[in-house]
Amino acid sequence: MSSIYGKNIRITIFGQSHSSAVGVVIDGLPAGFRIDFEELHRFMQRRAPGQKSWSTPRCEKDIPEFLSGLAGDVTCGAPLCAVIRNSDTRSSDYEQLKDIPRPGHADFTAQLKYKGAQDTAGGGHFSGRLTAPLCIAGGICLQLLNELGVEIGAHIVSVGSVRDALFDPVRVDADTLSAVKAADFPASDSVKGALMEKAIEEARLDGDSLGGVVECAAVGVPGGLGDPMFDGMENRIAAIVFGIPAVKGIEFGSGFGAAALRGSENNDSFCFDPYSFGTEHSSAVKTKTNNHGGILGGITSSMPVIFRVAVKPTPSISKPQQSVSLSKGCDAALTVKGRHDPCIVPRAVPCVEAAAAIAIYDAWLDNNKYKYEEYINGHQ
Amino acid sequence: MSSIYGKNIRITIFGQSHSSAVGVVIDGLPAGFRIDFEELHRFMQRRAPGQKSWSTPRCEKDIPEFLSGLAGDVTCGAPLCAVIRNSDTRSSDYEQLKDIPRPGHADFTAQLKYKGAQDTAGGGHFSGRLTAPLCIAGGICLQLLNELGVEIGAHIVSVGSVRDALFDPVRVDADTLSAVKAADFPASDSVKGALMEKAIEEARLDGDSLGGVVECAAVGVPGGLGDPMFDGMENRIAAIVFGIPAVKGIEFGSGFGAAALRGSENNDSFCFDPYSFGTEHSSAVKTKTNNHGGILGGITSSMPVIFRVAVKPTPSISKPQQSVSLSKGCDAALTVKGRHDPCIVPRAVPCVEAAAAIAIYDAWLDNNKYKYEEYINGHQ
Amino acid sequence: MSSIYGKNIRITIFGQSHSSAVGVVIDGLPAGFRIDFEELHRFMQRRAPGQKSWSTPRCEKDIPEFLSGLAGDVTCGAPLCAVIRNSDTRSSDYEQLKDIPRPGHADFTAQLKYKGAQDTAGGGHFSGRLTAPLCIAGGICLQLLNELGVEIGAHIVSVGSVRDALFDPVRVDADTLSAVKAADFPASDSVKGALMEKAIEEARLDGDSLGGVVECAAVGVPGGLGDPMFDGMENRIAAIVFGIPAVKGIEFGSGFGAAALRGSENNDSFCFDPYSFGTEHSSAVKTKTNNHGGILGGITSSMPVIFRVAVKPTPSISKPQQSVSLSKGCDAALTVKGRHDPCIVPRAVPCVEAAAAIAIYDAWLDNNKYKYEEYINGHQ
Amino acid sequence: MSSIYGKNIRITIFGQSHSSAVGVVIDGLPAGFRIDFEELHRFMQRRAPGQKSWSTPRCEKDIPEFLSGLAGDVTCGAPLCAVIRNSDTRSSDYEQLKDIPRPGHADFTAQLKYKGAQDTAGGGHFSGRLTAPLCIAGGICLQLLNELGVEIGAHIVSVGSVRDALFDPVRVDADTLSAVKAADFPASDSVKGALMEKAIEEARLDGDSLGGVVECAAVGVPGGLGDPMFDGMENRIAAIVFGIPAVKGIEFGSGFGAAALRGSENNDSFCFDPYSFGTEHSSAVKTKTNNHGGILGGITSSMPVIFRVAVKPTPSISKPQQSVSLSKGCDAALTVKGRHDPCIVPRAVPCVEAAAAIAIYDAWLDNNKYKYEEYINGHQ
Repeated sequence: MSSIYGKNIRITIFGQSHSSAVGVVIDGLPAGFRIDFEELHRFMQRRAPGQKSWSTPRCEKDIPEFLSGLAGDVTCGAPLCAVIRNSDTRSSDYEQLKDIPRPGHADFTAQLKYKGAQDTAGGGHFSGRLTAPLCIAGGICLQLLNELGVEIGAHIVSVGSVRDALFDPVRVDADTLSAVKAADFPASDSVKGALMEKAIEEARLDGDSLGGVVECAAVGVPGGLGDPMFDGMENRIAAIVFGIPAVKGIEFGSGFGAAALRGSENNDSFCFDPYSFGTEHSSAVKTKTNNHGGILGGITSSMPVIFRVAVKPTPSISKPQQSVSLSKGCDAALTVKGRHDPCIVPRAVPCVEAAAAIAIYDAWLDNNKYKYEEYINGHQ
Repeated sequence: MSSIYGKNIRITIFGQSHSSAVGVVIDGLPAGFRIDFEELHRFMQRRAPGQKSWSTPRCEKDIPEFLSGLAGDVTCGAPLCAVIRNSDTRSSDYEQLKDIPRPGHADFTAQLKYKGAQDTAGGGHFSGRLTAPLCIAGGICLQLLNELGVEIGAHIVSVGSVRDALFDPVRVDADTLSAVKAADFPASDSVKGALMEKAIEEARLDGDSLGGVVECAAVGVPGGLGDPMFDGMENRIAAIVFGIPAVKGIEFGSGFGAAALRGSENNDSFCFDPYSFGTEHSSAVKTKTNNHGGILGGITSSMPVIFRVAVKPTPSISKPQQSVSLSKGCDAALTVKGRHDPCIVPRAVPCVEAAAAIAIYDAWLDNNKYKYEEYINGHQ
Repeated sequence: MSSIYGKNIRITIFGQSHSSAVGVVIDGLPAGFRIDFEELHRFMQRRAPGQKSWSTPRCEKDIPEFLSGLAGDVTCGAPLCAVIRNSDTRSSDYEQLKDIPRPGHADFTAQLKYKGAQDTAGGGHFSGRLTAPLCIAGGICLQLLNELGVEIGAHIVSVGSVRDALFDPVRVDADTLSAVKAADFPASDSVKGALMEKAIEEARLDGDSLGGVVECAAVGVPGGLGDPMFDGMENRIAAIVFGIPAVKGIEFGSGFGAAALRGSENNDSFCFDPYSFGTEHSSAVKTKTNNHGGILGGITSSMPVIFRVAVKPTPSISKPQQSVSLSKGCDAALTVKGRHDPCIVPRAVPCVEAAAAIAIYDAWLDNNKYKYEEYINGHQ
Repeated sequence: MSSIYGKNIRITIFGQSHSSAVGVVIDGLPAGFRIDFEELHRFMQRRAPGQKSWSTPRCEKDIPEFLSGLAGDVTCGAPLCAVIRNSDTRSSDYEQLKDIPRPGHADFTAQLKYKGAQDTAGGGHFSGRLTAPLCIAGGICLQLLNELGVEIGAHIVSVGSVRDALFDPVRVDADTLSAVKAADFPASDSVKGALMEKAIEEARLDGDSLGGVVECAAVGVPGGLGDPMFDGMENRIAAIVFGIPAVKGIEFGSGFGAAALRGSENNDSFCFDPYSFGTEHSSAVKTKTNNHGGILGGITSSMPVIFRVAVKPTPSISKPQQSVSLSKGCDAALTVKGRHDPCIVPRAVPCVEAAAAIAIYDAWLDNNKYKYEEYINGHQ
């Protein structure tokens, strides 16, 4: 029951790295929505492999086939299924890994769980390739959110020891996000981006890999999404973001930094936005700072939703490593073959956006079902 | 649908800070388990208010009444409901907050969501008081896990600017955890603990508050718990931990630190444990380091599960703050009345343990349903 | 995980017949709804025991206490918990049943499942007493539906061999339903009702019991509720109705009778309602007959939703019966003590209404989240 | 969120009658199970169209392609996805139905729900074709259950006015079920079966259709499966069986017949099975009759699980019918084109078996997670 996410819109992801296909079923899309397939293709391409020195040389066109859920290019209310065929697979690269598991990878824990029945080729269901169907679902949710005035974008704020500035958590807007999404390398500062690319290339030449931190912002998110306790926006976003392989941490707003602040520093003062024209006072309330990352008590405040994600360095490196032979019961040296990204952080950027889009759209649907104010007004 | 957690064991939490009671329904407990109520009481007392200078002076005995689910003191298979009456409530302290929301608190977002119908007294359903029923459920799950050889404990690794050492992620064991759980202040180093208490007292006298970081370890967790993608142990733990008010970040193993490491540094080499007597080689495999925090690919590795949680400073401070009047549509100064913890980090410690216990026990039940090896062996 | 129902509104029922209390948590109620507690009390009284010769002489006032979820008498968005104390319990009546299970009752299967840990007193969690919290939840959903123009009512169409006419499935309306709900005995024809009461009294004097069939109608249900496949209105209603103890069958519209008809007889011709003033043609479409019971393809058609439920005779009868002694491993005669309804059909009537109300309101919320037509129109 | 079923094993069905493919994702299969694909093919063929005069002449080979979830022909623990391509589609047959809905069909309610965006071709997601992926999932669950000693089979007990005898609810066994599953026409009595085929042919020649009743038995089901209240075996089976198009009723054991019996007649006396060799007395307990259909209090008793399903006559008939034109707002005559079964009851038989297999296997997994008796014994 591992690969299903969501309450109102449900995402079921399937596939292994070297199975016939990977894919996704999306249940709960509104009927009558015209998907912009060119836009979706552009979104998918930001994740696609084989394009840069920092990504795996495995070449997959990543063109989804839509098996159901559409009448023409409009959603019809039935579950949408999209699949991407796996074509460029070289399973022989992975034969030894069932016996000698890769440090830092799921080879060993899959063996503990599935007792030898797991599909090890290419990492099986644990492969980063499974983020392709996540991006199909996320790309569609992003289009639905765009219609509601929500824009989501992410950038890299660190790779190895190279660091870039965070988004301005109060002023970040759709233009900021569009600019970084259009960039060749997903860093806000192109100079810093070039340094990151250089660091990745150095690690690659060294047979090693790098991790980093991705920051994501969602702007235009209406206030009131999410719920107290276990369905808060933090819970919802974390529950899907940790589904992206290699994510080891998440923080919202000032996050771990908040732990070192006093309340008087971390609390965001409220103020009225003089340019707001809402009919209710509450719709014109903003905060002067945004340490809360757009979420208070699990519920969105209408300030930008901001979170950062820690991505560990790719475990598959070509340097020799120390492992064990499970069949022989002794220590064993391992040199990993196969084609691997020296740093998955750049390709993780659209995946984080996709995850945020799914979580936010799902929360929006949850909230929408109570929008019938004429109905309750008579009772107050 | 906000207050339900779990797949095999389901926790439904209810109550507001000043309603008649707070409580929990636990569905899915095994029948025939004798709950140790004295042990549960000791666990609950670590969270209870009114005991220390750093906790709210509100005095609640926090003795749960068990309404169902038991025959005597043994679980009977039916849902267990436990309630704690709210007795020492002073709702008048909260009257102004519906109009002038507290910075950093859910007062404002609750207004956005519930349009004035929310119960503001004491923070309503957003109150830290709702962690009392979480601890009932967690305390019972902890007893169930103890029977399986699992121990869970947490300590404070920072309050404000005072920092303490992390657990040794390889050598932390049940004895380490028992020692810190028995301590008067939940810090591993009593000298650092005294500094933390001093810092909290200073903030209190200053009308301010402090945040901090809690680290939690679960030892003895069998390998193979958790699933790839959305039901990984990180997803499951994060999804419940963000239900504790004031949590703004979580990281597993080396977490955000991993983002700055190379793969060759972050990967944990495998080795054989010479003292292990398992019948299978895989049960004797350990890692020399534990950057992975006991979880690879969402699945436990049998190494200690380690995670850290960022807790923001209590938003309710007695210093004057800047807010708005929602009724008048103008800025407004606010001085918060009521009784509040100057630092909730110490009381969050057992809540984090409780959340981990529920998530791990739920994953254990998930895994257990496939334990019928004679059944599948014939097919391999 | 047995006692939770619903997707948007979630009902968690707890308690045993002789535990301290029975109760329900309702998560997902809209905030700002003023509950009419007198109306709810009247609804509950239709199920309450101890009032008639045909109901158990166990006397319970069945007055719920609301522990959470309200600010005054208005819902506040937090989960609502209501409990009813069990006061008049005589557990000694049930001591022998753990060894010698009652034929037709869950005593034996509870033993198979819970291995002796089950609470046998009064039937434990299997008791008809658990329908009291179901009626709390259903009564509140019914009030929410009333605001939307939906009325739900049920009547008895057979007890033992006494049969009464079915509702006219096309013309049944809110007035019909109100009349039968106000009746002393829930039969549409008072003469037939008197015969049913007489039959029940005869069975009681004979130490025996009777079953029967309850028919339920929901009128004013908007078209478009429910989904294809597993979330159809039939699936949703059946999934909750079988939670009422003693229900052994359900049929919608012409039901089992449809199996004997030809398509040309069973198909309901469409026609326009000349008195309808909708803005769309589809809202004026009715069917001339209603063999489909208001549901086609799992989705409501705007015709009355009609279903019938088979209720088996109360298994607890005072006549001597043949059973076994589980401890001794031999056959054993059993004479059931305790206080039992000779026919639970009359008291099942409001329970069936409650179940229908919960299922229909839950489906209404599901549907409502897509009501944002301005949003999708631009795409068509 | 309509097309997902199950708690431990989750079935997500997708596809429309004329989309590229129909298919299913099965999440939660045990790893290491070798699927017998020939056996699965034989099971699927019992549902496949185009073979008999009583089935639609649409010709589909119905050979599933397995996209994921396997390593060779053994399950690997990852979600299994199987698809069946739609090849023989003639969408032009359906063009008029969006305007003039077929009586008794979902054309009209789909319009109410999806406002014109629905895929009408071939009935879209409402088509009986969606039972093909249900049978893939059910066929695999049936193989898993066979390993546990469970056999499931169904037969037709009525078509139109032709009736056949029910299974003997006490003595029905695996041999009985195998015999009827091997039969050319799924009736236990071949003479009655021939009469049924004749009645169907007469209806077909008449441009009309017939309904009927399918009875299903599951033997060898261990006691203790299912839960009280909303997860009882009746609730679980009903919730999936109503997902089969055209099902309008379900009854367990004596079902609606029980409503006319007295308790002394309907209660099934317990007795010891002299041929049983269990280690516990409870495993040797049987009932002399089986009015309870193998389920008491929602939990299996170890007696055969028996239920009957009412299938309405196919709504698509070639006789002229009365409908409306939604575009013109007037009555309209309709003559349905396209290829349709004059009676879907024979093809529904394996679908009912499939549904039962999924529900029972899911309940078995639920129960299995508590099978750790050494763990709880110390507490009793």
